[in-house]
Amino acid sequence: MAGHNVTIESTIKALADERKYPALKDIFVTMNGADIAAVFKDIPEEKIPLLFRLLPKKLAAETFVEMSSDLQELLIEGFSNAELHEVIDELYVDDLAGLIDEMPANVVKRILAHADPEMRRDINEILKYPENSAGSIMTTEYISLKPNMTIDEALRHIRDTAIDKETVYTCYVTENRKLIGVLSLKQLLLVKDDSATISDIMNPNVIAVYTTDEREKVAQLLSKYNFIAMPVLDTEDILVGIITFDDAMDVIEEETTEDIERMAAILPSKKEYLRSRVFDIYKQRIIWLLMLMISATFTGIIISKFESALAAQVVLAAFIPMLMDTGGNSGSQASVTVIRALSLGDIEFRDLPKVVWKEFRAAILSGLTLSAVCFLKIILVDRLLLGNTHVTLLVSVVVCGALAVTVLVSKVIGSALPLFADKLGFDPAVMSSPFITTIVDAISLMVYFGFASALLF
Amino acid sequence: MAGHNVTIESTIKALADERKYPALKDIFVTMNGADIAAVFKDIPEEKIPLLFRLLPKKLAAETFVEMSSDLQELLIEGFSNAELHEVIDELYVDDLAGLIDEMPANVVKRILAHADPEMRRDINEILKYPENSAGSIMTTEYISLKPNMTIDEALRHIRDTAIDKETVYTCYVTENRKLIGVLSLKQLLLVKDDSATISDIMNPNVIAVYTTDEREKVAQLLSKYNFIAMPVLDTEDILVGIITFDDAMDVIEEETTEDIERMAAILPSKKEYLRSRVFDIYKQRIIWLLMLMISATFTGIIISKFESALAAQVVLAAFIPMLMDTGGNSGSQASVTVIRALSLGDIEFRDLPKVVWKEFRAAILSGLTLSAVCFLKIILVDRLLLGNTHVTLLVSVVVCGALAVTVLVSKVIGSALPLFADKLGFDPAVMSSPFITTIVDAISLMVYFGFASALLF
Repeated sequence: MAGHNVTIESTIKALADERKYPALKDIFVTMNGADIAAVFKDIPEEKIPLLFRLLPKKLAAETFVEMSSDLQELLIEGFSNAELHEVIDELYVDDLAGLIDEMPANVVKRILAHADPEMRRDINEILKYPENSAGSIMTTEYISLKPNMTIDEALRHIRDTAIDKETVYTCYVTENRKLIGVLSLKQLLLVKDDSATISDIMNPNVIAVYTTDEREKVAQLLSKYNFIAMPVLDTEDILVGIITFDDAMDVIEEETTEDIERMAAILPSKKEYLRSRVFDIYKQRIIWLLMLMISATFTGIIISKFESALAAQVVLAAFIPMLMDTGGNSGSQASVTVIRALSLGDIEFRDLPKVVWKEFRAAILSGLTLSAVCFLKIILVDRLLLGNTHVTLLVSVVVCGALAVTVLVSKVIGSALPLFADKLGFDPAVMSSPFITTIVDAISLMVYFGFASALLF
Repeated sequence: MAGHNVTIESTIKALADERKYPALKDIFVTMNGADIAAVFKDIPEEKIPLLFRLLPKKLAAETFVEMSSDLQELLIEGFSNAELHEVIDELYVDDLAGLIDEMPANVVKRILAHADPEMRRDINEILKYPENSAGSIMTTEYISLKPNMTIDEALRHIRDTAIDKETVYTCYVTENRKLIGVLSLKQLLLVKDDSATISDIMNPNVIAVYTTDEREKVAQLLSKYNFIAMPVLDTEDILVGIITFDDAMDVIEEETTEDIERMAAILPSKKEYLRSRVFDIYKQRIIWLLMLMISATFTGIIISKFESALAAQVVLAAFIPMLMDTGGNSGSQASVTVIRALSLGDIEFRDLPKVVWKEFRAAILSGLTLSAVCFLKIILVDRLLLGNTHVTLLVSVVVCGALAVTVLVSKVIGSALPLFADKLGFDPAVMSSPFITTIVDAISLMVYFGFASALLF
């Protein structure tokens, strides 16, 4: 049942401490690879090779795939050649290629030495594609049928070759290695007519991607069409692999995490939080903090320029944080909305006028509401409750006027910048809260002191 | 091929304008429901019912499912009873239940009136579960096998019933309606021994969820185990439905969007951005903007308290934006990292000490780096380049000291608050950038003026 490893975890730890290996083996065979890998995370590293050897071959491979790359490396280093060969043999080609991507050179050499020639060829095929491409996450193990096969022949072919295929539920029909149709195993099972051939029942309207397509786009496309697998073609339209739904789910998860990290001014990392070292976390974050801090020099200069004005009306300083924060929040609301819509494919650059016009109108509503409430707050809280007589009516007009303009400007900038970034080939997620905030800060201060100069001095 | 609707869109629009319906029909049958629905988005509403009627039954249902709820409503209102019945007949139970959830009462009545009694019962079963539960997104159409069936019997049963099932690729073995095992169609096809029964080959270590489990957790679990479908049990461990991977992908997408929206202080909405009305966007955003603006009153009060100090050393004001922004950015880096790790299930509340300790150390590194660079910047830019003599050495010590402390405090608060929110049953995503920023602002100002009081006055 879901989450049953919550209690099983401690049992396994205890049994490992007491070296009760037969009992451990009995428990492991009732478990799933993903759960065993999760338990291994909490077990001292030196015990893991021993426990891993208790797993039957297939489960061992399933568990291995789900482990973190540092634990995988540890295991491989301890493997005998025979053990290594066994694990490699059970892995799917795409998982093996993924593993090789993350191992140091000496480990890669050992792995490749123990893979079959055919597998080695397939791995090299996958490894030659750039990191974020469809080709780099595809598997070359799929079911391919010929158009003139009968239903019975096709079913027999599937039964004979299924064992090595990552999925058998979508079959691909090829002619001269070109993809000419798809059909699902369900369709195949539903055919009653014995004389039918594959070309009679296949769907010739094929949706496919190219090896060089971005993996994120491919994953979104698979999700949009609810496919179990997406076929991948090379530049000559030859079918070279498929991407299965589970890998697409992993891609979406990773890419979303990267987007969220970028939005928070963090350099993306692939490590799980608790496994990241302090120095790695520091490195992920310090660059943007430094850049944003340095760029705040401009706001400092603006304030310095108005130093004498500020000295005359120190009360103005009290509203700076509120103005800056509200501007920053308004801008990041708009930018985050646009960034997410971009990454879901709901909008694209040509929607810029529509987006900005929508944001402009929403900003006018927001700006008016915020100004009105701010004015009330100043009257009720600052003047009546706190009795701050420096906050004159003119000061409140300056504050509320600057607020409305700041909200308007920040919504428009916040919505437009990510679209421009996307158009120019940058990740729009970078044009998010922290970046927008820094720009909006400078603008809001200029507007504020502009209003103040016009009305107060 | 991927994205081939980019060019087909304009063709369809042109053909629709010229009323060339036979040609349109020929194009539609080569397309996928998701693509047709995407094209419909850009076509004037009054033309959609006509175009929809060109689609063959199955494709019509596929397209209908992918349309936005306002277009679905529009179509249903125009449907004759026979047409409504036809579409409903082709929909899977979970899609129909989802549709009913979003339609107004009078439309729901009409839909239910045209569903078969059996389907109506299944819909009601699904509709009785709360909105974000596993029960509310499951389908009741799955393949169930008996343990004593032979492989041949099982395959025949699958072929006979497959047409109505959302997936046939994972089969569920039940005894007295309780789930006792699972097996994949692939396993079934691989069996060579004719005398084997289902109980011989099924996997008795079942992973399942309960109808009342949160749909987000269930989707994450399905993704973790790479399942095509996750079985759903009621409180008596009776199998009542399954959740398929495509629905899990949709759940993850929706929940991630909600998280991202909450992190940017936006109330979640289910509408696509371009289809949202300006007033809806305004409503989604204004509440948090108002709350955060009002809470900035505290920062105002703090500054007012130190008004006389500020009047004496106006130069201090110039560093307020930099301090607040760097504090806010540091805090939101930590909070966003923790929020994402929480929603991926990488950490939980009991990891609080580990998380805070990690952040504390990363914060010391970051704080020292930032202070050092800030000090250099003050000397080089403010003093040498800009010749601002007000920035004395003592002022820079105050600024850099306050900066280091602010970074430290904001990282610790930023990492701890989401964990507490989660523990208390709130969505941790709310404890994100804007909220943290507001808290950190107040703290950074107090630290700043505290340092200033101690060293300058």
